This record gives sequence, structure tokens and C-alpha cells, in this order.
Amino acid sequence: MMVPPLSEGQALARVKYLSIDPTMRVWMADVPQYMPPVQLGEVMRSFGLAEILESRHPDFKKGDKLMGLTGLQEYVVITPGDPRAFQKLPSIPFLSDTNFLGTLGLNGLTAYFGLLEIAKPQSGETLVVSGAAGATGSIVGQLGKIHGCRVIGIAGSDDKCRWIKDDLAFDVAINYKHPDWRQQLIAATPNGVDIDFENVGGEIMEAVLDRMKLHGRVILCGLISGYTRQDPALSSFSRVLIKRLRVEGFIILDYASRFMDAARQLGMWKMTGKIKDRHTIVKGFDRAPEAINMLFQGDNIGKLIVEL
Amino acid sequence: MMVPPLSEGQALARVKYLSIDPTMRVWMADVPQYMPPVQLGEVMRSFGLAEILESRHPDFKKGDKLMGLTGLQEYVVITPGDPRAFQKLPSIPFLSDTNFLGTLGLNGLTAYFGLLEIAKPQSGETLVVSGAAGATGSIVGQLGKIHGCRVIGIAGSDDKCRWIKDDLAFDVAINYKHPDWRQQLIAATPNGVDIDFENVGGEIMEAVLDRMKLHGRVILCGLISGYTRQDPALSSFSRVLIKRLRVEGFIILDYASRFMDAARQLGMWKMTGKIKDRHTIVKGFDRAPEAINMLFQGDNIGKLIVEL
Repeated sequence: MMVPPLSEGQALARVKYLSIDPTMRVWMADVPQYMPPVQLGEVMRSFGLAEILESRHPDFKKGDKLMGLTGLQEYVVITPGDPRAFQKLPSIPFLSDTNFLGTLGLNGLTAYFGLLEIAKPQSGETLVVSGAAGATGSIVGQLGKIHGCRVIGIAGSDDKCRWIKDDLAFDVAINYKHPDWRQQLIAATPNGVDIDFENVGGEIMEAVLDRMKLHGRVILCGLISGYTRQDPALSSFSRVLIKRLRVEGFIILDYASRFMDAARQLGMWKMTGKIKDRHTIVKGFDRAPEAINMLFQGDNIGKLIVEL
Repeated sequence: MMVPPLSEGQALARVKYLSIDPTMRVWMADVPQYMPPVQLGEVMRSFGLAEILESRHPDFKKGDKLMGLTGLQEYVVITPGDPRAFQKLPSIPFLSDTNFLGTLGLNGLTAYFGLLEIAKPQSGETLVVSGAAGATGSIVGQLGKIHGCRVIGIAGSDDKCRWIKDDLAFDVAINYKHPDWRQQLIAATPNGVDIDFENVGGEIMEAVLDRMKLHGRVILCGLISGYTRQDPALSSFSRVLIKRLRVEGFIILDYASRFMDAARQLGMWKMTGKIKDRHTIVKGFDRAPEAINMLFQGDNIGKLIVEL
């Protein structure tokens, strides 16, 4: 191989393994996303594991193994202050290089932080994970088991289902290509679902949402079912994912025990002029149905009240 | 009026005011929801303010004023252990009865708990509220101002916009019936949006989601734009709202500084057999594009890796 001589601070590494991830399809799409889309003519972005061949870089020496955004290429030159997040692999006994791409790599880390930090699973809770035989989903389910959850995995073949159930000890595995998969999901979640770790989106996600308990948690980690759609428009859930939004459904009745305290505070603000209000009053009981329609025609300003 | 004599524990009340709320449209729909749908032939459910005419109820005496689910009717008999959430109005000086339906009623309470408990607004943050001239939205915006937010309201007429901007001191009011309302929203949120207090849904919500900052909070309080659709199927966001779910978008890169600690823990679980994994290895750099497609065809089990 002929490479130009390295400048001070640079290192040359050979890529040994490339990590193939669904998010790569997103990086190729011309839509707003969490990193700039890859442009035509650029090296395709990817994570990979590389070994240093030659180094004038202060942090890396020959033979070091690194993880980072190597890109889809055979050699990578690492520069001072490289933005591609290269990190030297720690040496952990009994682990092969490829473990650092999956279980100890971005997939394992995604499972770890997404499930343990955001969902915070409690023993006895029911966890559903979609894409369950994938690199991330398979770790999510096992972390759920470690934390005492009942774990239901949804995957796309009987082989995959056998692996997660028989080898990984998921409680239930559901092949969504079977015609009765929705019934299987209902049967597997008699008390509802506490946590949905969502990798897929679309109709699988909707079926799981229908099984959620009140106040359940949905970790929106991936929406792979939509990544290959022709329509480049972002779905609302894509927006939530890419921007890492937190969306909370909210019904006031859950706070009933604290109504009086809050009303007192609101009354204070009202009396001191910090809150103003306005009423649209409709007179007469018979006009109540008409009043309901007014809301949807935008005919009221402020509170709409029927006075009897 | 002729009423049958009250039994021990009952009270008779006359309804003085009915609260007209968008959720009533939901209660009429034959879809799963947070309370049972109202059946044909039943009294239509509604909140209202009623005054006790006659009482054999231990908690209420003649002349007391109550709030609760009176229903769309002129008189209501309150029973022992009544499930309709009747509460006696506290006496707060200078406040009229109708204040207890709006500002100090469910709308004010919804604004109070939804904004202050769930969104937790910080001084200097940007808050967008849709349905901003409605009973709830108008209080949300004012609570935002009390807490030091920059407040943008979206409403459906110039009159409504004038009220929230001139009288309620919202920073910006946008009439979504103006053709350039999206441009107005962009111009009003040069640094993005921290909190969306969502009462409307649909394209208004999507436009606001496009303006959200990373890690923004969306309080899903109502989806009025969808309540009168003919299609009774629940949207995904309806499911989130009705079940009070918390949906969090999640991208692992946000946790980069803690990768090594997590990898060490994962490595431990891997070494002790608590986590198992599986790799699908594709050999040869030239097969990387093919490997990417495999993900979307479901051809891999576990981690998909290209070995160079």
C-alpha cells in the first residue's frame, strides 16, 4: 500500500470490521436528522473497528485497536481532534474484537442506557422489545431479564424467535409474520405492558401501544419499518426520535387529590391580576349541543360555559 | 318540580352552569379511552356547577355549591359514594361561580399540573401553546409568563390572537388560518422551542415538532383537530394521550461520555454468561452495500458485521 507520509498528530489505521446498522439508511436520506446526511461522493459513514498501522498521533500507537466512525473504507487516517469519536478499546479478557461492535459497542450501549437509564425497569414489570433478534433488541431483552422483567420479544422469523426464547430466555417470542401475531401479543400481555423498547415503529408499535398500561414508558430507539419508505417526509415519531423529545400524554384526573391546593394558587394569581380569563357564555340548557359544536368550529374565546 | 323523596345520604342539586369541553366529543366516540364512552340513552357526561336544593347527604347542605360530573341535565341527585367526583367549592373572595369552571376548574388545573409538574418550565425557555385562546391554552400561556418563559400562542382568529397578545401579554400570537403561519412560527422561534403544550395535534403539532430543540418536552394534553374525524381509528398520539404514556426519543451518542463505564458492566455480564450474543458476519469489503440491505430484509440474526 502507498500512503502519503503522515503529518505530525496523524495515525493510519486498517479497518478490520464494519458495523452495519439501520441508522446508516437514515444517514443516506435527505431529511433533517441527528447528524448531517452523507453527501453524494463522500465516503459512506459507518462505525467500525480499526487497528493502528503507523502513528504520529499522541494517543494511539501501532497495534492499538479503535472503535469509531471509520466509514465504509479499508483504511482510515485519524487526524488531531478527529470528530469521528475514535476510542481505544479497553482490554477485557475473553472478549473478541467483534464483541466491541455489538454487545460492548453501540448496540449494547444503546440497550444499556435506553433501558436502564430512561425506562428504569422494575422487577416484575412487563417489557416488550421489537426487533428483538437484532443487535440492540437482543441485549435489551436480556438486560430486562437481568432486572427481573417479564420479557416479550417481537421478531420476524421462527429462527429468530427460537434464538431469543431458547438461548436468550425471553419469556415469549412472537413472529410478527405469523397471521395471529396480534392475538399472541394480547395473550402474552394479560396485564398490559409497562415498557415498550421500540426499534421498529409502524403497525408493530401501534399494536404494542394498544397493550400499554396507563403511564407506561415507550423508549423510541428506532423506527426501522419506515427507513426504506420512498416518501422522504418525516413521520411525527421520527421527529420525536431524532430530536430526542420527551412526549407525555396527560389527563388531569390523575391529579384529583391535589386539585384544591392548585386551585388556591390559581385563585391567588387570578386575584392579583397575574392570570386573566374570559368566558363565552351560552344561555339556556337547550343550547348545550350547539355549544359543544362551537368548540370544534372555533367559535369560543376562553372558557365556554352553558348557563342554565 | 316534583322529585321522589330523597333517601338517606342523597342530595338534590340544581345545575347552574355546564362546562363545555373538547373531551366531551371523545366521550361520545366508540373508541377505547380514559373513561367508558357514553352509551346511547345515557345522560351525556359533562362537568358542571350545581347548587344543593335539598340534602340528606352528610357532606352537603342546602345552598352549598359543588363542581363535578353533573351531566347535561338540569337537576342531579347525588348519592352516597357518588363516583362523579363532586367537590364543594371553597369560598375564595372576589371570584365568581364561573371562575370555578375555567381558571380554577379543570382548565386551570390542567394548565397548572401539565405545565408546572410535567414540563417544569425554566426562566428563559420558549413555550409554544396551541389552542392558545381556549380555556386551557390561555392559562398555560399565562403560567408560562409567570415562570419567565417566552410564550408563543397559536390560535384560529385575529380576535383570539389580539386577546392573547394584548390582554394576556403572550410574546407572539399566530393565527394558523393565515397563509404564512408556518413562516411566522419559524420567525418567532429563532432558537427553537423548549416546550410544546399541545392541545390541537395534526399539522399544527407537526409544525411545532419541527421547531423543537433537542431534548424538548411535548405535553400532549389534547388533540382537538382529530376529535371530529369520521375515521374512528385511534391515532398513535391518541393512544399516548389516553394512556398517559411517556414516549422518549433516544440517540445513544448523547451518552458518549459514559460509554466506557457501561461497556465494562456489559463486559462483566457477557463474561459471566448473563448476556449472550450472536453475530452475522459478512466477509469482504465489497459486500458492505449488500450487508446494509440485509438489515431491511431481516436477513441477520444478532449483530451484523462486515469483516474486511
